[in-house]
Amino acid sequence: MATVKTTSPKESAKSPRTARGRQTLRKLLDAAAKEFGEKGFHEASISGITRRAGTALGSFYTYYDSKDAIFRALVKDMSEQVASHARAAVEPETAAFEIERAALHAFLEFAHDNKEIYRIVDEAEFVDPASFRAHYETTAARMLERLKRGEQSGEMREGLEEAHAWAIMGMNVFLGLRYSVWSDKTDPDRIARLANALLREGIGKKADS
Amino acid sequence: MATVKTTSPKESAKSPRTARGRQTLRKLLDAAAKEFGEKGFHEASISGITRRAGTALGSFYTYYDSKDAIFRALVKDMSEQVASHARAAVEPETAAFEIERAALHAFLEFAHDNKEIYRIVDEAEFVDPASFRAHYETTAARMLERLKRGEQSGEMREGLEEAHAWAIMGMNVFLGLRYSVWSDKTDPDRIARLANALLREGIGKKADS
Repeated sequence: MATVKTTSPKESAKSPRTARGRQTLRKLLDAAAKEFGEKGFHEASISGITRRAGTALGSFYTYYDSKDAIFRALVKDMSEQVASHARAAVEPETAAFEIERAALHAFLEFAHDNKEIYRIVDEAEFVDPASFRAHYETTAARMLERLKRGEQSGEMREGLEEAHAWAIMGMNVFLGLRYSVWSDKTDPDRIARLANALLREGIGKKADS
Repeated sequence: MATVKTTSPKESAKSPRTARGRQTLRKLLDAAAKEFGEKGFHEASISGITRRAGTALGSFYTYYDSKDAIFRALVKDMSEQVASHARAAVEPETAAFEIERAALHAFLEFAHDNKEIYRIVDEAEFVDPASFRAHYETTAARMLERLKRGEQSGEMREGLEEAHAWAIMGMNVFLGLRYSVWSDKTDPDRIARLANALLREGIGKKADS
């Protein structure tokens, strides 16, 4: 299967310099999420994206060279949106486990409101493997930083490492798939608490004390 | 994107009645795993599968109507292989957490030896969504049964439910992706122990006793 070409410096340099430009770019990315989410990469088209965005075809080419280029930008954008939703849900000085709970809660809500994120990220495995890998590697690296801070503050146990981050990320991704994407009535609060209890204490029976 | 047609009763009735027939079917499924794993669903072909299997085209059509049909059978077969590898790794009367450790260890080894499983199952999300969903729902149901047994035996805490099964399945899937598929030197023993400790006790700092 043909895969998306790697980023050229030229492409990444095309960032808008005006508020209006940033607005157009946002419209294009939101429209691309709908177009790729509904049709999949192969059936999606640039004209479908500009139609949904209500922009001229010329505006598209101001920012992106190709369908490949906007798909790649979209995976990166969704990855950043997930991160910024998680950050926004957390107050500074929040306790380590509470950060994880709030981050998962924010992710479950985001995935519920943007169900197409799974289809787009998962399709990246086939049409743009580098973006797929970058999305998960970046997310895991961010998770590991948080775990290390929890370890330093004495809330989490010592010796946490990359594999813990991948385990927790996988947990969150599958809970999102099952309870935000495949379920109509979702209860992100309950699911985030349940996963957080698993993280804090595991599922072993407690010895009576 | 065109999706695989749902199973007809006729298709599922085509099971071989002889040892030789079962051998041919096994060869076809193993060849299909290689063909779909290397080329992806769209580029893969029936003739590519029979060439790899060293069987005649007629043998293929004895068992499958189409490329769709063998893809669907393959996802089900891989799902069953994962389950049977996990079962084979566990002695009867094994303790509940030890079952989870052994099952993950077996999965990590299976994924390392059959790296194409991720590409095939993940591509099913697009070409055969029903198989994709069935694979994870079946795997989660099996996990939940094990958790319930652990709860009844008093090894695991009470109140475990479907969401715990999905969380643990997600953990295992992502550890397999990172440490069996994306990594050449893999240490399934270490990773399975690390994940098992997370399950048993979580990652919270223990109070001094």
